[in-house]
Amino acid sequence: MTLTRNWSMHPEGSVLVEFGATRVLCTASVTEGVPRWRKGSGLGWITAEYAMLPRATTTRSDRESVKGRIGGRTHEISRLIGRSLRACLDLSALGENSIMVDCDVLQADGGTRTAAITGGYVAVADAVGWLARQHALSGKPEEALHRSVAAVSVGIIGGQPRLDLCYEEDVIADVDMNIVCTGNGEFVEVQGTGEQAVFKRAELDNLVDLGAAGCAALAELQRKALAS
Amino acid sequence: MTLTRNWSMHPEGSVLVEFGATRVLCTASVTEGVPRWRKGSGLGWITAEYAMLPRATTTRSDRESVKGRIGGRTHEISRLIGRSLRACLDLSALGENSIMVDCDVLQADGGTRTAAITGGYVAVADAVGWLARQHALSGKPEEALHRSVAAVSVGIIGGQPRLDLCYEEDVIADVDMNIVCTGNGEFVEVQGTGEQAVFKRAELDNLVDLGAAGCAALAELQRKALAS
Amino acid sequence: MTLTRNWSMHPEGSVLVEFGATRVLCTASVTEGVPRWRKGSGLGWITAEYAMLPRATTTRSDRESVKGRIGGRTHEISRLIGRSLRACLDLSALGENSIMVDCDVLQADGGTRTAAITGGYVAVADAVGWLARQHALSGKPEEALHRSVAAVSVGIIGGQPRLDLCYEEDVIADVDMNIVCTGNGEFVEVQGTGEQAVFKRAELDNLVDLGAAGCAALAELQRKALAS
Amino acid sequence: MTLTRNWSMHPEGSVLVEFGATRVLCTASVTEGVPRWRKGSGLGWITAEYAMLPRATTTRSDRESVKGRIGGRTHEISRLIGRSLRACLDLSALGENSIMVDCDVLQADGGTRTAAITGGYVAVADAVGWLARQHALSGKPEEALHRSVAAVSVGIIGGQPRLDLCYEEDVIADVDMNIVCTGNGEFVEVQGTGEQAVFKRAELDNLVDLGAAGCAALAELQRKALAS
Amino acid sequence: MTLTRNWSMHPEGSVLVEFGATRVLCTASVTEGVPRWRKGSGLGWITAEYAMLPRATTTRSDRESVKGRIGGRTHEISRLIGRSLRACLDLSALGENSIMVDCDVLQADGGTRTAAITGGYVAVADAVGWLARQHALSGKPEEALHRSVAAVSVGIIGGQPRLDLCYEEDVIADVDMNIVCTGNGEFVEVQGTGEQAVFKRAELDNLVDLGAAGCAALAELQRKALAS
Amino acid sequence: MTLTRNWSMHPEGSVLVEFGATRVLCTASVTEGVPRWRKGSGLGWITAEYAMLPRATTTRSDRESVKGRIGGRTHEISRLIGRSLRACLDLSALGENSIMVDCDVLQADGGTRTAAITGGYVAVADAVGWLARQHALSGKPEEALHRSVAAVSVGIIGGQPRLDLCYEEDVIADVDMNIVCTGNGEFVEVQGTGEQAVFKRAELDNLVDLGAAGCAALAELQRKALAS
Repeated sequence: MTLTRNWSMHPEGSVLVEFGATRVLCTASVTEGVPRWRKGSGLGWITAEYAMLPRATTTRSDRESVKGRIGGRTHEISRLIGRSLRACLDLSALGENSIMVDCDVLQADGGTRTAAITGGYVAVADAVGWLARQHALSGKPEEALHRSVAAVSVGIIGGQPRLDLCYEEDVIADVDMNIVCTGNGEFVEVQGTGEQAVFKRAELDNLVDLGAAGCAALAELQRKALAS
Repeated sequence: MTLTRNWSMHPEGSVLVEFGATRVLCTASVTEGVPRWRKGSGLGWITAEYAMLPRATTTRSDRESVKGRIGGRTHEISRLIGRSLRACLDLSALGENSIMVDCDVLQADGGTRTAAITGGYVAVADAVGWLARQHALSGKPEEALHRSVAAVSVGIIGGQPRLDLCYEEDVIADVDMNIVCTGNGEFVEVQGTGEQAVFKRAELDNLVDLGAAGCAALAELQRKALAS
Repeated sequence: MTLTRNWSMHPEGSVLVEFGATRVLCTASVTEGVPRWRKGSGLGWITAEYAMLPRATTTRSDRESVKGRIGGRTHEISRLIGRSLRACLDLSALGENSIMVDCDVLQADGGTRTAAITGGYVAVADAVGWLARQHALSGKPEEALHRSVAAVSVGIIGGQPRLDLCYEEDVIADVDMNIVCTGNGEFVEVQGTGEQAVFKRAELDNLVDLGAAGCAALAELQRKALAS
Repeated sequence: MTLTRNWSMHPEGSVLVEFGATRVLCTASVTEGVPRWRKGSGLGWITAEYAMLPRATTTRSDRESVKGRIGGRTHEISRLIGRSLRACLDLSALGENSIMVDCDVLQADGGTRTAAITGGYVAVADAVGWLARQHALSGKPEEALHRSVAAVSVGIIGGQPRLDLCYEEDVIADVDMNIVCTGNGEFVEVQGTGEQAVFKRAELDNLVDLGAAGCAALAELQRKALAS
Repeated sequence: MTLTRNWSMHPEGSVLVEFGATRVLCTASVTEGVPRWRKGSGLGWITAEYAMLPRATTTRSDRESVKGRIGGRTHEISRLIGRSLRACLDLSALGENSIMVDCDVLQADGGTRTAAITGGYVAVADAVGWLARQHALSGKPEEALHRSVAAVSVGIIGGQPRLDLCYEEDVIADVDMNIVCTGNGEFVEVQGTGEQAVFKRAELDNLVDLGAAGCAALAELQRKALAS
Repeated sequence: MTLTRNWSMHPEGSVLVEFGATRVLCTASVTEGVPRWRKGSGLGWITAEYAMLPRATTTRSDRESVKGRIGGRTHEISRLIGRSLRACLDLSALGENSIMVDCDVLQADGGTRTAAITGGYVAVADAVGWLARQHALSGKPEEALHRSVAAVSVGIIGGQPRLDLCYEEDVIADVDMNIVCTGNGEFVEVQGTGEQAVFKRAELDNLVDLGAAGCAALAELQRKALAS
């Protein structure tokens, strides 16, 4: 996995995540203030939107803007990314600022949602750094960004647990699981689905172990990217 | 939990699920044939839609039909129900028939998505029975409906794992998890989210244990309801 | 016709109307204040929305939320219900409060719009009672709710005028008429349509007589339901 | 009321109706064939759409195309026009042809829906004539167009029944009624609404008498327009 | 070309443009104030919307309101009209007033967008006159309306440059160009498209000459119409 | 300007265009067959869609998919790109194949539409090459792709004609013009707009000269990119 910071010139934080052939551009856009219903709370706000370019995939998909509606898969993934990145932040230390994270898949080959979370965290870290340089945070930067977050996909193929499924593996996996962990190895989100099959407790445990180890490796990569 | 079969007169399967103050009407509508892209495959099709009446909740929500778009939460839950109920069926034994499961929340007090899955299974079972009586299945009824499926919500409140959170508990839960199991105790879907907090491996394990036990109790209730 | 008050726990007024096999859940939701363009007028506001569950009918209809638009029939009926219930209220005695009446058809077998009006009135009466207990009305309760309103459908089948058509009768009716009357026997709305045929003045007169008598019987039922 | 036939060059039937300051352009567009679900029935099809130019009224309204949705009033009126014009035609004599009637209000000063029906009938008559010249009818023209239809609005202002309310009268009317009659004086549709007040049986009778007389006068005008 | 001022009674400016068989109703609606983001700037605002009646053309088009979205052609033309009419006005002399120009094509036979600009200018001039009579302008009327604007379509058919293409010519034109000029012969917009062919510099020059001459003739017509 | 071919792995043609700080990803997606209304014509089909990532610009724009509608600017540019690229192809030599060109702006700093056309041509050339290797063209590749097309933006700033305006220059330009030329120096499209001012014939001529020279330089770059 490669994390290229400042890939774009305009956003307060921007990271190009490359993971196998998957490429996701994560940008974090800061705006002063929070949505109306939250004003005066002293709390910040973060949310995320996920989308795919129409030909990020093997066959072209119609644009959701042209269809006039957002599909269920897009909604589901956007919500997962938003919940995961919310865990990074102490919203009272962030102060009444809003961060919008956009994760646009430029090329897809499996694991786009977990790549988006992993890269999104680095973009958010840069956005918090930008806010700190503007003296716009309510607390210290390390209070506002109180945890790191990374995510991996794991699955069972032919009875074997596997980390980081590419698209071809994903299609044939019996069980598919996304694990989101903090840099301390605690869990933020665990989503396992029996796509072609159901799964036993021992399989669940194996997948969780494998995923947690994968997240730990990514957390190290994130630390290096942010230190450079 | 109460499961009232044949609550509605028109659908091939219909169940009113009552679970605490939560009331969900699950109907299974059968149509001959499958969507165009699936024709000639010999496989059936099942999908689900979830919705809430506008005043099912403490404060009224605007109708999604009036807003002209379906929200992210609705999409996410509809997809979870659809994936879970797909695990009940062997689509080749179902033959080229389609089952649409509608889960409409008449009154909400927590656990609406898991109630919808649990009641939806019973409505699907009745729809398969209806197809059997029409001699429209490709296989035997027990092949078409090869597993039962039930779901519970579990959570951690004040450090304690809890089964079946009502709305007030759900709001204050640190961790929220939905567990979907088959009647044999295998897992179909596990979704855990740290809403207010992150969680450790031991907490995950406790929640999964609690959820699996809850599903086993519901599976027994489903058996009784279908036997009556 | 059965009118079950307080069928739902959350709304300020809620009534399940059962009329033959037709079942409509009418809820009245109160919010303080009125839409922006009405502020400072001293007048309250009431409006209504009608919808059907997808499998309330013999064959399943697609959800209007999924289609992304509200159909003409839904719009037409919502407007009829709104106009009819507006006649119940003296909006200056109501004060700057808003009542939204939701009429959701759980099961349909003819006469859903007239059942919605008849049940909606009872839900509105309970909502006005709730406002009275909150000391939120500008006038007295009996001034705010200055008339009762009930509605029936009548039609001509095979040359004979008929009250309360069920779905099968409705389909074959030559003329179809909805009559909305106050408890005093005055008319709020009269809508007659020659579906399969045109009609003469004498037929119109007969239908109006029949409808007015039907409304008088329902007004008595409403009085009893509200007295209990 | 002035009925100008062939106001537009493209449609098979087109009539500009002027009624006081109200101006409605009614066009009838013929297409061979019927919607898919009706194919092979031997029956034709007719439907109508009503709309207003944004500045047809004293203050400008936003376009429904820009809002992305059709309002309830538009839906309600389109359906009324469609039902009324359906009464003109014997759909089996029309054969499998479709007529779409568009009624666009160029200038509004009350009575736009009744003007649309009255002018729409003449446009439909011309469209049937066009079909006859193409030898495309299943029956004779006088069988296909078996009745004429006209409509008026009547109302009660200050206790007095009044025919043909202009916009300023319409706003202050206590009761507002639209009457649609055939050329023989039979009723197609009767819609009376107590806008500011309820109404008694005697008032209803007076309004129906007045409306039927108004329709008879318009039927004569339609005959003359079609004869010229 | 005929320009009929005050064709409609409600708008502050209204012109029916007839140009060959093409008929466009241009109305200019004035509202006090400007959109929120422009408040306090001292500048006025003008924008335009273009639309066609469904049967303005040889075959009927579906309404954009029914489709729920505005097509690309409509958007493109509305923007061209808006940019062109903006050139007429000195927005600081207009003061904080808004003018919405609606151009509705009642009958189409080529050149609808250029007819809309040419007629739209006259409607805007009448709206500015109306504002002057209300003493609502910040500057003098001749400062607010500091230029006139007219537009023509030109094209190359069979190698020959041609002014004012009707629909049949437009369809077979190799090159199609819209020229918008001020009354002084300066250019506001030049849009040339090689529809069936590409074009050389000399052809471009010829078309621009022809178009500028056409605009000069229309400017004279506009002066006469406004003088009468 | 840099043209990076094969930037994406999935599309039949893909080019990343970099032009100053502007970056546009152009992909050409080939599908066998043509839209239904064109079947049996022997002609191919090409169309284009343009979009911007939400934070391609200095401030974030809402996604058009979330707003549920495509804006006028997007429509206008998509149509310009489509018309321009249609000029590259002889659709009868292409045969009944469809090419969809997607131009997604990853970073914007002026000239995105002209960069999209210039890069889009190279992506189309690669797609035609792919079709040739599949033996799916009706004619020879050099017949199918019978012209090259490139585009530049030119403008007048402070009285001086300028090539290739960046965003800051674009905002202050008096006149803004997009020129699309073939590799032979013929014109495909000329669009000049007086944004802040009107322009004289001599200025128009200067801009066209400057633009044509700019296009010639780009055509040379395209030739080199396709030769490498």
